[in-house]
Amino acid sequence: MSQTKENDVPAETRAEPPATPRRGRGRRPADEVRADVLRTVGELLLREGMAAVTFDGIARASGVSKTTIYKWWPSAGALALDGYFHAVEPMLAFEDTGDIRADLTHQLHSFARVMTQTAGGRVLTEIIGRAQSDADLARAYRELYSSERRRLAVARMQKAVEAGQIRGDVDLQVLVDQLWGAVYHRLLIPDEPVTEAFVDALIDNLLRGIQ
Amino acid sequence: MSQTKENDVPAETRAEPPATPRRGRGRRPADEVRADVLRTVGELLLREGMAAVTFDGIARASGVSKTTIYKWWPSAGALALDGYFHAVEPMLAFEDTGDIRADLTHQLHSFARVMTQTAGGRVLTEIIGRAQSDADLARAYRELYSSERRRLAVARMQKAVEAGQIRGDVDLQVLVDQLWGAVYHRLLIPDEPVTEAFVDALIDNLLRGIQ
Repeated sequence: MSQTKENDVPAETRAEPPATPRRGRGRRPADEVRADVLRTVGELLLREGMAAVTFDGIARASGVSKTTIYKWWPSAGALALDGYFHAVEPMLAFEDTGDIRADLTHQLHSFARVMTQTAGGRVLTEIIGRAQSDADLARAYRELYSSERRRLAVARMQKAVEAGQIRGDVDLQVLVDQLWGAVYHRLLIPDEPVTEAFVDALIDNLLRGIQ
Repeated sequence: MSQTKENDVPAETRAEPPATPRRGRGRRPADEVRADVLRTVGELLLREGMAAVTFDGIARASGVSKTTIYKWWPSAGALALDGYFHAVEPMLAFEDTGDIRADLTHQLHSFARVMTQTAGGRVLTEIIGRAQSDADLARAYRELYSSERRRLAVARMQKAVEAGQIRGDVDLQVLVDQLWGAVYHRLLIPDEPVTEAFVDALIDNLLRGIQ
């Protein structure tokens, strides 16, 4: 992917992209190298799962040295989470057509697809599983993944409150647990399957009420 | 707890309680011994967590031989799950006062208390965590714990359907994920806390709807 050598990437001094384009034998800005690493991690994760994310493997696949990768991510878990977040972000984007039922349906269908039809579900359940007995991984998961996913969901639902489609007294954080959290529950404890009908029922139960 | 020796408990031949009470030096029916072991496991689990559940430790604490315990439970995980189910069953009982909102509120408050104020929450998240990479433990969890908890919840909600308090077209399995599953989500990924207000909001969002 890149023939740049480790010592061509002084990360600390290159947080800002240089004013001039790449020179000579390929010195590149740190954020470009960083994006390369994340893309490599994301592709490997969705194709092969967590086992593929090792510092050695990522260094080999991205052409960036292990030393550089270590500088940015303290553990393989943190690297995997950051790569995963960036890989699924476009698939999990929240639309805003002005219709909260349609937009939640669209997003949750995409989410269910990523979870059941790519290695994504296996990656996340494995990370959440390991996080139960690894406090560092648990913190990395919340900081690099779940708290940001929560923020994006609440932001879209807040617009629905402003549009009068969700009551103003509803705690939007609770809805995150009753929509995406309910899907995670079935992924982690697979007594029942994650299907489109399930996702539709999650939304309908909340919007209409069950009485 | 018992001075009975291993060879006084021929488990396979004692599934039915004997017609006569305990004789001589204390030969006891298998199901009484089994209940002793489960009680010992349950007490240890809620007090000290999963680490306390070893075949050696349980044999010592219950006075039942390891050989007998192995006969009934193939792994420490299965033993822990069975003990846990029996220990929490009385605390997690479903009332039927005829008012589904009151009964769900009562049960979910108890559930939240067990999860946050005893070692129960730690025990379950640790087991669910390990189950993500241990297919035998995952199967034991579903068979010895979660599928039976699901059945009990659906049975109570089915009565509410019959009483006209929940619409007949609602899939009650989905409600399990949006009530208890939402709590597990916060326990496993603790971005937000499990409180009584959270539990009340879970119920209210579904009964009233959020529009």
